[in-house]
Amino acid sequence: MAGPTPRNLKAVLEYEGTAYLGWQRQPQGPTVQEVLEEALARLVGRRVPVVGSGRTDAGVHALGQVANFRVVSRIPTERFAAALNAHLPGDVAVLEVTEVPWGFHARRDARWKHYRYTLLCRPSRPALERGRVYHVPLPLDLEAMRAAARILVGRHDFRAFAAADPHRRRRSTVREMGRAAVTRVGERVHLDFVASGFLYRMVRTLAGTLLEVGLGKRPPASVAELLAGAPRAAAGPSLPPRGLTLVAVHYDLTPPGRDV
Amino acid sequence: MAGPTPRNLKAVLEYEGTAYLGWQRQPQGPTVQEVLEEALARLVGRRVPVVGSGRTDAGVHALGQVANFRVVSRIPTERFAAALNAHLPGDVAVLEVTEVPWGFHARRDARWKHYRYTLLCRPSRPALERGRVYHVPLPLDLEAMRAAARILVGRHDFRAFAAADPHRRRRSTVREMGRAAVTRVGERVHLDFVASGFLYRMVRTLAGTLLEVGLGKRPPASVAELLAGAPRAAAGPSLPPRGLTLVAVHYDLTPPGRDV
Repeated sequence: MAGPTPRNLKAVLEYEGTAYLGWQRQPQGPTVQEVLEEALARLVGRRVPVVGSGRTDAGVHALGQVANFRVVSRIPTERFAAALNAHLPGDVAVLEVTEVPWGFHARRDARWKHYRYTLLCRPSRPALERGRVYHVPLPLDLEAMRAAARILVGRHDFRAFAAADPHRRRRSTVREMGRAAVTRVGERVHLDFVASGFLYRMVRTLAGTLLEVGLGKRPPASVAELLAGAPRAAAGPSLPPRGLTLVAVHYDLTPPGRDV
Repeated sequence: MAGPTPRNLKAVLEYEGTAYLGWQRQPQGPTVQEVLEEALARLVGRRVPVVGSGRTDAGVHALGQVANFRVVSRIPTERFAAALNAHLPGDVAVLEVTEVPWGFHARRDARWKHYRYTLLCRPSRPALERGRVYHVPLPLDLEAMRAAARILVGRHDFRAFAAADPHRRRRSTVREMGRAAVTRVGERVHLDFVASGFLYRMVRTLAGTLLEVGLGKRPPASVAELLAGAPRAAAGPSLPPRGLTLVAVHYDLTPPGRDV
């Protein structure tokens, strides 16, 4: 009797990044890729490499990280998510698993990524949301932040918003920003960025720069100068990872609509 | 020179209940009242008793618990919240402190309390929200749940929804339910209850009963039988505390509007 056919599976993952050194495997401590590969190994009986859409940094969360892996297993595709969840720690959950063409590659085929940085704007520090937001105890000028965000949309060189990446050589720093939105929801202000890709620490530096605009520390037009070649030191600070969430990864060429 | 005038201060608190044995001080472990009284003692130099609007159970969260305490201190009222937050652990935050009349009593004067129980309705278990929601992997009939919730509104004997209270003698079990709402927000279903007061474990048993209605395990009309004198065993189960949040406490006689 022939064994099961090899499949390429695409998984969508939610995780709280607090306890992890980010997505990508590394010797210094636990990562999401590592716990996912371990759960998969327990499930199918041998080590299977998992390809993520991209790294998320230590402490960054995900509502819709995407990964793929090629397996030979008798577990039906529609039961794979539940089977993996039984072997994953509580702060990582597989939301769905679907079969994709053999050539699908979660990183190379990713077309758009949606990141959200969340500010909590109120006098008191957070308690319930303390691991998910960055606290801003001062009022923000959202209209100025929106004016700055509009400048980001389009194809630009985002070099001024990138930190030196310790993991790989810097190649092109040009990216296409499909959407940059500033939205207030109660005490929270969401900064949503949808782009063809992000440089190292780019979202957190964009958030820090928009925050300075909101606090009146820099004019919205300073963002145009940063895109026109101003140095990294002219941008705002990188905000801490806890406020950042990878919302979704899209594999269509057309820019996505709203994810959340 | 005369010292500062004694003040009665009202504090509004947010907390994540996960690490606490509830609100009320007890010898077995940490409680929110205890950490608040300790922060206050460090601030004013001696022990001051804190009166809460009521107990929350172990693991239950709060967005708007209310407490009052009488102090003699040179710290201005408008700086009290920040001063307390500097002495409180990260999972407890004072949102505001205001001066109230000397006779104000957070428990005796409370007129309405608003609790929210949150269900996460999707196939996969939660990761990011795992400490804040109860996972329901099956579809819910929200219209049936709303029909059951409507029956709860009004002045009723809620005895069938109360667990035996180990802390105090049972007195009247009649309460007035001002609002009982079932609202879907994305994958979440919020069960909101605003009442003149709640019996021990009442909200979690109401949530468990409405959940059984939503799953088709009992008809909405069974809620009327429970209010008409059916025994506790005829109600649904008490759901776990992690899905429960004390949203607000109101001190006006008129029923409150929406808090969140």
